[in-house]
Amino acid sequence: LGRRNFGVARRLSKRRSRCYAVGGNRHFTLPNPNEEAMAAIPEKYSDLLAPSKKSFAHLATLMEDGSPQVTPVWLDYTDGMIRVNTARGRVKDRNMKVGSRVALSIQDPENPYRYVQIRGKVAKETEQGADAHIDSLAKKYMGVDSYPFRNAAEKRVIYFIEPTSGQGMN
Amino acid sequence: LGRRNFGVARRLSKRRSRCYAVGGNRHFTLPNPNEEAMAAIPEKYSDLLAPSKKSFAHLATLMEDGSPQVTPVWLDYTDGMIRVNTARGRVKDRNMKVGSRVALSIQDPENPYRYVQIRGKVAKETEQGADAHIDSLAKKYMGVDSYPFRNAAEKRVIYFIEPTSGQGMN
Repeated sequence: LGRRNFGVARRLSKRRSRCYAVGGNRHFTLPNPNEEAMAAIPEKYSDLLAPSKKSFAHLATLMEDGSPQVTPVWLDYTDGMIRVNTARGRVKDRNMKVGSRVALSIQDPENPYRYVQIRGKVAKETEQGADAHIDSLAKKYMGVDSYPFRNAAEKRVIYFIEPTSGQGMN
Repeated sequence: LGRRNFGVARRLSKRRSRCYAVGGNRHFTLPNPNEEAMAAIPEKYSDLLAPSKKSFAHLATLMEDGSPQVTPVWLDYTDGMIRVNTARGRVKDRNMKVGSRVALSIQDPENPYRYVQIRGKVAKETEQGADAHIDSLAKKYMGVDSYPFRNAAEKRVIYFIEPTSGQGMN
């Protein structure tokens, strides 16, 4: 069970952080490069975000009272951003604004002991292109051209999540 | 895609909350019974917590700065409590104290569109029996009698999570 950290971007803290394998026994002390740049997801885990892999993200958001909420969602990854799609008014939508802190756990559907965990923040949200985006996710996950659960009464929204830190287990 | 709420226990809020299917199109307005009792996980989703099902929980905890963190963990369910097992000093251990608010997303390994999401709080933590407990989880998930990643230098801890609310999608 090897675990690797990838580009940790922290602006405020110089503390070193520790990272551990879930169910594993390796402890790594991670460097904290104190970088400003967005964290890149390493090549090693990029397949978990690829169109060919039907990995769900378990997306954690914060409720108004600060407590966590987590559910599985579809995702894609483009230009260094993880994108998820929800509808206006849902819990995730109400919990996510630009700047909101979120976290994702993405497990390999073929090997549950291989995963990447990502922390990040909402960099952008838009309704533009959100209908086409949910269709592209339906294609990725269900192999269909059009999102089969579309509800004419609801407005879709794309959230762009900028990874700021993460660790993988392989 | 049907989604059902189960016993929502909220002491402080009388607001009605809404709940939605991820990737689905059903909106339900949930009753808020304002009960004090622990929420029971309905029979319909109990198989996701059973020893026979190798469902991982994606457990969200809160970092010291209030941001969410989420990773896959093993779980079992006994006496109305979800139990997870970690080691002293890990991120999850540092984030969980008695009373800490957590959330779990538990997907059916045979059908990713079937899951239960749970919010709750840490009711108890103990090192007592934690070595035997990690062995029993290794038995459940890996079919082995003894946890293969044991590290003599680390102390195992069991966390007991009391569900306070949750929804399922079936």
